[in-house]
Amino acid sequence: MKSVALLGATGSIGKQTVDVISQHSDKFELYAMSFGENVEEALRIIKQCKPKIVAVKNDRVYQLLKEQLDEPVKIISGKEALSEISADPTVDIVVNAVMGSVGLRATLTAIEYKKQIAFANKETLVTAGHLVMEAANQAGVPLLPVDSEHSAIYQALNGEKKNQVQKIILTASGGSFRDKSREELEGVTVEDALNHPNWSMGAKITVDSATMMNKGLEVIEAHWLFGIPYENIEVILHRESIIHSMVEYVDHSIIAQLGTPDMRIPIQYALTYPDRYSLNRSKALQLTEIGKLHFEKMDEQRFPCLTYAYRAGKEGGSLPTVLNAANEAAVALFLKGKISFLDIEKVIERAMNLHHKVDNPNLEMIELIDSEVRKEIFQDYL
Amino acid sequence: MKSVALLGATGSIGKQTVDVISQHSDKFELYAMSFGENVEEALRIIKQCKPKIVAVKNDRVYQLLKEQLDEPVKIISGKEALSEISADPTVDIVVNAVMGSVGLRATLTAIEYKKQIAFANKETLVTAGHLVMEAANQAGVPLLPVDSEHSAIYQALNGEKKNQVQKIILTASGGSFRDKSREELEGVTVEDALNHPNWSMGAKITVDSATMMNKGLEVIEAHWLFGIPYENIEVILHRESIIHSMVEYVDHSIIAQLGTPDMRIPIQYALTYPDRYSLNRSKALQLTEIGKLHFEKMDEQRFPCLTYAYRAGKEGGSLPTVLNAANEAAVALFLKGKISFLDIEKVIERAMNLHHKVDNPNLEMIELIDSEVRKEIFQDYL
Repeated sequence: MKSVALLGATGSIGKQTVDVISQHSDKFELYAMSFGENVEEALRIIKQCKPKIVAVKNDRVYQLLKEQLDEPVKIISGKEALSEISADPTVDIVVNAVMGSVGLRATLTAIEYKKQIAFANKETLVTAGHLVMEAANQAGVPLLPVDSEHSAIYQALNGEKKNQVQKIILTASGGSFRDKSREELEGVTVEDALNHPNWSMGAKITVDSATMMNKGLEVIEAHWLFGIPYENIEVILHRESIIHSMVEYVDHSIIAQLGTPDMRIPIQYALTYPDRYSLNRSKALQLTEIGKLHFEKMDEQRFPCLTYAYRAGKEGGSLPTVLNAANEAAVALFLKGKISFLDIEKVIERAMNLHHKVDNPNLEMIELIDSEVRKEIFQDYL
Repeated sequence: MKSVALLGATGSIGKQTVDVISQHSDKFELYAMSFGENVEEALRIIKQCKPKIVAVKNDRVYQLLKEQLDEPVKIISGKEALSEISADPTVDIVVNAVMGSVGLRATLTAIEYKKQIAFANKETLVTAGHLVMEAANQAGVPLLPVDSEHSAIYQALNGEKKNQVQKIILTASGGSFRDKSREELEGVTVEDALNHPNWSMGAKITVDSATMMNKGLEVIEAHWLFGIPYENIEVILHRESIIHSMVEYVDHSIIAQLGTPDMRIPIQYALTYPDRYSLNRSKALQLTEIGKLHFEKMDEQRFPCLTYAYRAGKEGGSLPTVLNAANEAAVALFLKGKISFLDIEKVIERAMNLHHKVDNPNLEMIELIDSEVRKEIFQDYL
């Protein structure tokens, strides 16, 4: 029986992780969880899974939860709560499914305590990839990716040698607005942006998909997770999201991972690796029913956020932190109706251009830059 | 430096193996080779690669070769010559690229002497899969498949566990006549049949692709190589031959191997496994240039040979031997203009229906049935 600490339990990945754990209650138990604001959903999960510890972000949520809770659960709150459950000696696996760079310290703690880490929190690798990977390599802790693309690459690397990889090919669905020209993006609404054609995901990642920033963050994530230079990471458009990503080897053989767009498959894989378990209520892929798979070149003019991400990754230092913080702030402003969809790009580009790059920033410097970039953007627009 | 014995050097796979070996002359040397009739091509290879031993099938070819040979090469001839070079103590790797069940004894010899075996001779697994696999498993010798489909599956199984495989999905291009109805097959010529849309291969396998018997033989080959029940081996049509085959696991994740249709990739993989080397003059796959991949259900009414192969495989015993021998005889008759394309199916079905199945046949019984089936068919038509 493996004990799981699930960070971000009430989000999209969190809820699907609960489903996977519940399907294999002989193998996994939800020992600890954290959540942000959604007390109702948290109560449902607590009732279902009976975790021993719940981490909440502040005293307000603590009180709300406490009042409605029948179960005998230890509740902890505050900035250190995520790290506390990540370090708990009972925990075997930490599933980091929080959204944004707020997950960084918990990731570093889980590495320090040598937990198995199922990793859905790409922003922490974008903002501090060099620190996270250095710690993970030193501790000998593998980061098992939950992102469907990175899980696909992880699976395509199974049994292979890293130095024989030629290229990583990330596939992108194109997001909610893939069939719109840049002119047609002028008037799009939040509701339009949240209507993803293939995947059911949280709001932030769905907007990131529409701007293609999600793929940009994934490029940086792939660079760190797999140690591949940016020149050897390619993004192609693949409308159907059936081939989740590919690895090309030096002999021109390509290994790909395919499946229906169901996040529970990569979530489960990160929990069960190197084994695979059956997964109820998931559909086997029927390629003959789909009939056709499409592939197109990525148009970087159409999706400038991807170019920003490559630039941030290649220039390195503190620039990826700025890219990520500016994007998180801009998407939050867009979701609140404060800026337009196309303003997201402008906010990010401006923040990157204004920034004076710091080489090899440490954790404190990253957190400082992260909070300053957000503050400046919010000051401009709120 | 690894010494290679190449059986069937002048065939399509043989010549491409010579190309691969020549590209990596620091890693491999062609120590021994065999060929059938093509003395001219054999002389070219001998001149280029300077093997120490050449096996020929009879004294006539021996004399022809001897007269034209300048190099100091040992020539051996006769029925046992293939086995002799397979057993040679200098040889590390045996590439079995002969066509037809004539390769069976040499395969068993290579297993007995614990050589690494690169295996392109699917007919010997079809005709005597239980004997070959029993010997290979006992000796602990892996059979590294050269067929693009089986190489794809081998690669897709890398680092995975056999008991977590749900299904093998073999892709079929459909062959030369994939866009013709059964009525339109009435008048097709040998020349038409040899015009394969994707792959440049030998005559027999190209006809087998057009009848879909090639895929049928591959189903049986996959059953033996990977130990998967016939119920869990599926064939789908995939016109482009880009996804070479796939493995579906119990978690509904599918691993596929993709590439341009270039047999040198799987040939080289079988030589270099578990490593991958770069391969000159091979093209990297550009999915965005291809644009679309198509998948269709297999129509067993349209391709009855596939049904015969599943039947032979499932009923087992000596029936696969009959399937294979009848097919080899029928294709030879078709290539000589003695029977029509659609007669190939009839010859095979008739031979299978007339046969009294022997359970668990030994090597002598298999060779007896193999030769009797051919003899009867040739008597009927020659």
